Amino acid sequence: MKFRRSGRLIDMTNYFIQNPQRLIPLTYFADKYNSAKSSISEDMAIIKQTFEQQGIGTLVTLPGAAGGVKFMPKMSNEEASQLVEELCGMIEKPERLLPGGYLYLTDILGDPRVVNKIGRLYASLFANRKIDVVMTVATKGIPVAYAVAQYLDVPVVVVRRDSKVTEGSTVSINYVSGSSKRIQTMLLAKRSLAVGSNVLIIDDFMKAGGTVNGMISLLEEFDATVAGIGVLVESEDIEERLVDEYISLVQLKDVNIKEKHISVQEGNYLKYI
Amino acid sequence: MKFRRSGRLIDMTNYFIQNPQRLIPLTYFADKYNSAKSSISEDMAIIKQTFEQQGIGTLVTLPGAAGGVKFMPKMSNEEASQLVEELCGMIEKPERLLPGGYLYLTDILGDPRVVNKIGRLYASLFANRKIDVVMTVATKGIPVAYAVAQYLDVPVVVVRRDSKVTEGSTVSINYVSGSSKRIQTMLLAKRSLAVGSNVLIIDDFMKAGGTVNGMISLLEEFDATVAGIGVLVESEDIEERLVDEYISLVQLKDVNIKEKHISVQEGNYLKYI
Repeated sequence: MKFRRSGRLIDMTNYFIQNPQRLIPLTYFADKYNSAKSSISEDMAIIKQTFEQQGIGTLVTLPGAAGGVKFMPKMSNEEASQLVEELCGMIEKPERLLPGGYLYLTDILGDPRVVNKIGRLYASLFANRKIDVVMTVATKGIPVAYAVAQYLDVPVVVVRRDSKVTEGSTVSINYVSGSSKRIQTMLLAKRSLAVGSNVLIIDDFMKAGGTVNGMISLLEEFDATVAGIGVLVESEDIEERLVDEYISLVQLKDVNIKEKHISVQEGNYLKYI
Repeated sequence: MKFRRSGRLIDMTNYFIQNPQRLIPLTYFADKYNSAKSSISEDMAIIKQTFEQQGIGTLVTLPGAAGGVKFMPKMSNEEASQLVEELCGMIEKPERLLPGGYLYLTDILGDPRVVNKIGRLYASLFANRKIDVVMTVATKGIPVAYAVAQYLDVPVVVVRRDSKVTEGSTVSINYVSGSSKRIQTMLLAKRSLAVGSNVLIIDDFMKAGGTVNGMISLLEEFDATVAGIGVLVESEDIEERLVDEYISLVQLKDVNIKEKHISVQEGNYLKYI
């Protein structure tokens, strides 16, 4: 089948969007469309230009026999600010307040549209780091972790708080929860993480950072390196944060249970843009 | 800014792929590209043709003032068979066998590429049903549920086996696990599911169907309707299956723990294509 330029542009755009970060040899497209490499190169230049103009991302070309072209998704600063503003607006609704000062985030984390955008933003923020795998802890962080991993084209590993027979042998650690000071356990299937991996930690909520700190300890058992930490919401200023470098999108400023009032501000992500 | 056709086709393709199932008024594109509606209609015809030819999906146009255009993702039968074959090949590897005859699927479910394809296939299979929300049970089913929900453009609700303070008030039921005959509990945050919803149940593995059956009982508490059931892997023939109508992608045929041998075949999904 012979393709016209318009058909090629549409099909290539779909392919790039569905396969972020993957190196695709020019011959793949030339063969698929039965077209000359020079035409494919021209198509690529048009796509790259549009992607950049529209804040979708960019195409990176690697020369040579093992080369090809790679789509790097990106969220523009404008779209990022808009998303964070939207998140702030959703999170400060007083009906989210649960007994004990906890926040109900289930509906936000249950919306694939929102979760996907968060994923794209984090993938943009961490684009220049070497990341082999995204790690999170069950259950709430899972959707965001997958969304980030999808845009980075890496797998996800999920840390659990209880052992399951379908995981096989596990490595477990004890850690101290930062806020309640209780000793807790977390574990990871032995075969789910390769020794020496570069790991991006993603979680939905961080108080003092005990859980994230637990994940860092767990990574040490696998001789793995922390490539970055992303938390969707961080709580209001904590005297002693157990984690140093992390990127948050939203920060709670003030949670008043008595008056049912939540105030929020944007997280520290702007420093990393 | 004025757009040329090539730029419009690329940007529109990206928009459709990122926003499946969403009705977009023609004026949205006409305004964005500062172009006549007639040009946008021509663009749309080209995109529709390419999407259909390439098995990406189709564009559906709804006429009238409240009308617009909607991208319906679809997986071609050829791509579906290829995916299921690939899944079968991965699942029958003997190193997946865990003590007790359980299967290690964590790596497959940890790969966003594979999970996304599974999501697109299920979204194709359930495309003609009225679905308001996708439901799954923590933890393994979550990534597949999100992938399906993303292509259907609906939210996800996650049933848990333990109560969490961040969920608010919950509705819980007891159910009998089909294979072990033990009584277990599952619960769902009260505010996470609207009364009367049409619910697609997605899970990673089904033995006798006790867990899925539990979810169905839980749905009754919300006066909700089961719109469909999808399970990635179903176990070998069970004498008494607790669930009638479900779509599986892979079926275990024979699991021999002693000889470390797994044989699989494709699930019943072909009947629904």
